[in-house]
Amino acid sequence: MKFLAQLDRAATKNNSLVCIGLDVDLKLLPTTSNNLLEKIFTFNKSIVDATKDLVCAYKPNSAFYEQYGLEGFSALLKTIEYIKSNTDIPVILDAKRGDIGNSSAAYAASAFKVFQADAVTVNPYMGYDSIEPFLSYEDKGVFILCLTSNPGAQDFQSEIYLKVARQAASWNKHDNCGLVVGATRPEQLKEVREIVGDMPILIPGVGAQGGDVALTVKNGVNKKGLRAVINSSRAIIYAKEPRVEAQKLRDLINEHRNG
Amino acid sequence: MKFLAQLDRAATKNNSLVCIGLDVDLKLLPTTSNNLLEKIFTFNKSIVDATKDLVCAYKPNSAFYEQYGLEGFSALLKTIEYIKSNTDIPVILDAKRGDIGNSSAAYAASAFKVFQADAVTVNPYMGYDSIEPFLSYEDKGVFILCLTSNPGAQDFQSEIYLKVARQAASWNKHDNCGLVVGATRPEQLKEVREIVGDMPILIPGVGAQGGDVALTVKNGVNKKGLRAVINSSRAIIYAKEPRVEAQKLRDLINEHRNG
Repeated sequence: MKFLAQLDRAATKNNSLVCIGLDVDLKLLPTTSNNLLEKIFTFNKSIVDATKDLVCAYKPNSAFYEQYGLEGFSALLKTIEYIKSNTDIPVILDAKRGDIGNSSAAYAASAFKVFQADAVTVNPYMGYDSIEPFLSYEDKGVFILCLTSNPGAQDFQSEIYLKVARQAASWNKHDNCGLVVGATRPEQLKEVREIVGDMPILIPGVGAQGGDVALTVKNGVNKKGLRAVINSSRAIIYAKEPRVEAQKLRDLINEHRNG
Repeated sequence: MKFLAQLDRAATKNNSLVCIGLDVDLKLLPTTSNNLLEKIFTFNKSIVDATKDLVCAYKPNSAFYEQYGLEGFSALLKTIEYIKSNTDIPVILDAKRGDIGNSSAAYAASAFKVFQADAVTVNPYMGYDSIEPFLSYEDKGVFILCLTSNPGAQDFQSEIYLKVARQAASWNKHDNCGLVVGATRPEQLKEVREIVGDMPILIPGVGAQGGDVALTVKNGVNKKGLRAVINSSRAIIYAKEPRVEAQKLRDLINEHRNG
């Protein structure tokens, strides 16, 4: 099944645009085991089990696993495998990769063949030939960084994000390309939505980073109220009751989505 | 020892600006073993043993290891460990990472603490707070992508590479920041060298990608004929005699460097 179909199916079935970011931080995990791999996997499993009827996607950020070396990579592999075997929810590997053609082909093989992700985030700085190897996996999704949620987005992105959005729209030959736009930039999110039509937009920044949910939904969805993938990581996974927090965010989003 | 001191020491001792890119490709490796880790490590070890008196740096590209999953990561770990235990040559991990602050901190921990690299390449698209966590390791080197050697460099970089160079120069508070400029852009390399003074410039693209060596050297070095790190990957490592090819490139560079 193609990524967009997977995403739409999960969003419709669970009536949800919520994506949960699985950003593991050992300092914040309960001490369930001395084994690093088990500790991380058990935590992620508990989040997935508690929320799989409330979300449209899961998004593990590769950085948080890489910092724990081989055990971290193993935990990432096992987490994605678990999600794919036990749910219908697509997995977006947040890896922000990008390199010259043959190196990007290797990164794409890692994301899609080794880790079995359904979609990946990529960095546009190196241009088309750095992104094409990802896009050539027609069944997989590719979210290109456009305008990110952090302060540094103003350093270089502000000059080129509209060009990135336009180019991404022109590169979307297999209907598998999306963009990343931070919830902290609602006006620009609106501009980008106008440029990219029905392409999916991954939107981080509504949780700990403080983006406004109402504006994010209003400006982020397509005409059918879909294709916005609104991510929250630590505000959900490190909450006392992750399920309750996920439900709250889903309902808050739907309030603005429907009315 | 700080990265720049390591780099200058190796460049001076070996009278070389050559960096060898350890871009492993199983299809091109001799069949020494059925064990993937051993096969990759044995190959890399043979390159390092044959060239360690001819180079100023080694540059494994993370992509080529990641595509082989856990065994690939293990081979990368073991390769870097071998170089650090058996040579004085610094290791630049070509990872092109970059994310919001706390995620970049995790990537920096991976590069510098898990993999023990001496320097890393990073992507500037997400701005200062995505790069600062790397720069905060004062003894480690950080090469920021500026103008890359591939065709896609013209898509977005051409509008902002000079700004990236100027910002990088202003961010270089710990004297540990460098840039990446492709050998396929000799005129722009000259501009960047003028902006960044003595900062190191990592220059890929003279081998298989066809950059001109004479112009690269002339425009890439600082006033002392140093701080250009001229990378060649497959043209050396998959040559019949890697040592001979490395020596040829070193000598060709030195011809233009000294005259």
